[in-house]
Amino acid sequence: MDFPALAGESLSRIEATKPLVHQITNIVVANDSANLTLGFGALPVMAYAPEEVAEMAAIAQALVLNIGTLSAGEVEAMLIAGKAAGAKGTPIILDPVGAGATTFRTESALRLLRELPITVLRGNRGEIGALVGSGEVRGVEATGNEDPHQVARAAHEAFGVTVAVTGPVDVVVGKEKTYFVHNGTPLLGAITGSGCMATATIGIFNAVGNDPALQTALGLASYEVAAERAADGAPGPGTFRSRLLDEVAALHSAGTSGVRIEVN
Amino acid sequence: MDFPALAGESLSRIEATKPLVHQITNIVVANDSANLTLGFGALPVMAYAPEEVAEMAAIAQALVLNIGTLSAGEVEAMLIAGKAAGAKGTPIILDPVGAGATTFRTESALRLLRELPITVLRGNRGEIGALVGSGEVRGVEATGNEDPHQVARAAHEAFGVTVAVTGPVDVVVGKEKTYFVHNGTPLLGAITGSGCMATATIGIFNAVGNDPALQTALGLASYEVAAERAADGAPGPGTFRSRLLDEVAALHSAGTSGVRIEVN
Amino acid sequence: MDFPALAGESLSRIEATKPLVHQITNIVVANDSANLTLGFGALPVMAYAPEEVAEMAAIAQALVLNIGTLSAGEVEAMLIAGKAAGAKGTPIILDPVGAGATTFRTESALRLLRELPITVLRGNRGEIGALVGSGEVRGVEATGNEDPHQVARAAHEAFGVTVAVTGPVDVVVGKEKTYFVHNGTPLLGAITGSGCMATATIGIFNAVGNDPALQTALGLASYEVAAERAADGAPGPGTFRSRLLDEVAALHSAGTSGVRIEVN
Repeated sequence: MDFPALAGESLSRIEATKPLVHQITNIVVANDSANLTLGFGALPVMAYAPEEVAEMAAIAQALVLNIGTLSAGEVEAMLIAGKAAGAKGTPIILDPVGAGATTFRTESALRLLRELPITVLRGNRGEIGALVGSGEVRGVEATGNEDPHQVARAAHEAFGVTVAVTGPVDVVVGKEKTYFVHNGTPLLGAITGSGCMATATIGIFNAVGNDPALQTALGLASYEVAAERAADGAPGPGTFRSRLLDEVAALHSAGTSGVRIEVN
Repeated sequence: MDFPALAGESLSRIEATKPLVHQITNIVVANDSANLTLGFGALPVMAYAPEEVAEMAAIAQALVLNIGTLSAGEVEAMLIAGKAAGAKGTPIILDPVGAGATTFRTESALRLLRELPITVLRGNRGEIGALVGSGEVRGVEATGNEDPHQVARAAHEAFGVTVAVTGPVDVVVGKEKTYFVHNGTPLLGAITGSGCMATATIGIFNAVGNDPALQTALGLASYEVAAERAADGAPGPGTFRSRLLDEVAALHSAGTSGVRIEVN
Repeated sequence: MDFPALAGESLSRIEATKPLVHQITNIVVANDSANLTLGFGALPVMAYAPEEVAEMAAIAQALVLNIGTLSAGEVEAMLIAGKAAGAKGTPIILDPVGAGATTFRTESALRLLRELPITVLRGNRGEIGALVGSGEVRGVEATGNEDPHQVARAAHEAFGVTVAVTGPVDVVVGKEKTYFVHNGTPLLGAITGSGCMATATIGIFNAVGNDPALQTALGLASYEVAAERAADGAPGPGTFRSRLLDEVAALHSAGTSGVRIEVN
């Protein structure tokens, strides 16, 4: 498979169709995620109120749920939005930020997985591991030594959804194939919300393609190619963060030849 | 009228009096709006709790209401704050973000317009159109083909307030005059919250002058002159966003000779 | 005392132990504070839900409470988190943003001081003054002419905690010693959240040392040395803000020789 070309085709479809990506996300990354979504050429909308999430999710082409600063009310809104998205067959992406750090986070993530037709689950190895009973996190950072591939496979089997465990190499386990994404830069780990932005990217790419695992791998690789370019010559994480958005917006013109995905 | 000189005079009054601008805004743009307000030389304060909004609005020189990530509770807080501001004759600026995308947004915006002495209503043509029954939005982006001038005029007639419809050319319809602002850059459309920042700017400029339509036009033009300078040589939206704040803060020294406003 | 060396040793301990800093903070600065925490080499976690804050605070090495966009529910969550942190002897840092501007802010800050074993209280001279009955603020900015040293001393006597009043010279009044930090740049006053980031820094440094006043002074000086470097050649506040994060992350390698602290 020619992954760089496939990534480029997805980018073109994003640019052409401007999918609306409804995001119920945390207060830390809301701005970065919205800017990233615009950078890819899609339309972000952040909507949280139980009075409106069903209506918003029903007109969106993807729904992104992120529990980074969850509350009981926000989980209820996610359930309402998720049911509306599910009824339309709209892809739903779940980011269980900090699962494993508190019981509330772990149980909320498990409840969303149980009650909603989640399409893709994305987290670090600690968070995904916690959902299958093996992960170690401190706050929202993975600190254990779980094997990402094993964790992703276990979660795929437990929940029956496409699972992406991101890290130095990202592993995406789908129904038929497993993808390994070899792009990225250590600077992504130096900014907050880089994982949340990866999740938003997965939402954007799943809005323009029907193979969840493939679209997830293409999205992660495209985002990380932009990050590699942004890191080149960046004096530190603050400047990198601004340049990351520049490079995401430049992907349409600069191309995706750097995409490095393995499949088996 | 010498608009560049008038804009400069408003900027000087902002710098001299440091107006306090109380903003009840969304979680996506809160940081950008606060930084923009400081950049202009005014003082931002973000306060949401029903226990304090009346007290805060009563000491402010302008109140900015933005429904970008509204909740039922936040709308109640806006009503309390708006009544306190109205009792003092303090200008109130309303940004009906995403009106038309959901019933909750449209009805909340209409309720604020009905129950509060709004001074200026600012939105894109889709949002303002939705409030008068003609707009098209997807999420928070305008997608229809409404004529901005016609939409602004209809909203002015329907609600009796100054209306600003922003876009490639901004139209500001006041009681006596209509202004057309010819400044701006396409990069404003590439970052999230550029409209929300325009609304905050309108609040700041209305804190230092009594003619709502004129102050709105001067504010929009000043903000967009800064954006033009920030766009010059910017490699993409991320860097542009940082430079926009640099150039807003530099307006006092770099001047407003680029202001291009037409009136009729 | 060799303060530059002591600051360097604290930075090394932060890098080696990666303390988890639980922050209940406002929607304006949440992203900046999280990025700053990562920049110092510590781990940020933002958690607000009453269902989880006790569990999160109990595993953290510091707890930072910031009332910048407080609500009644958030104050309750702070009380729960603070009691859990207190039970473990974990340092708690309080930032009474906007105390004095509204009764709700002043009383909430006083309640947190009364009911929790606060370790360090940090604010500007207006906010801290308001808590001891003498400050003047407009929104969240100090506007009066209080003497920072006198205000800090009065608050230390009133509440029995270490008090940091930040400004052109920061004053830190502890049980035995008073520190004066002579670092900083006027550009810190040109960006929103610079005070909130100072408070987060105090949390990070108190996570790796047992002398609250000393750790507070070392943290403030280190943060402000990074700010001085970021200001050098910065064209304005937007670029400065990105560079500040670059320079905080570079402190480990660039060193702390610029730290200027006086003690008496």
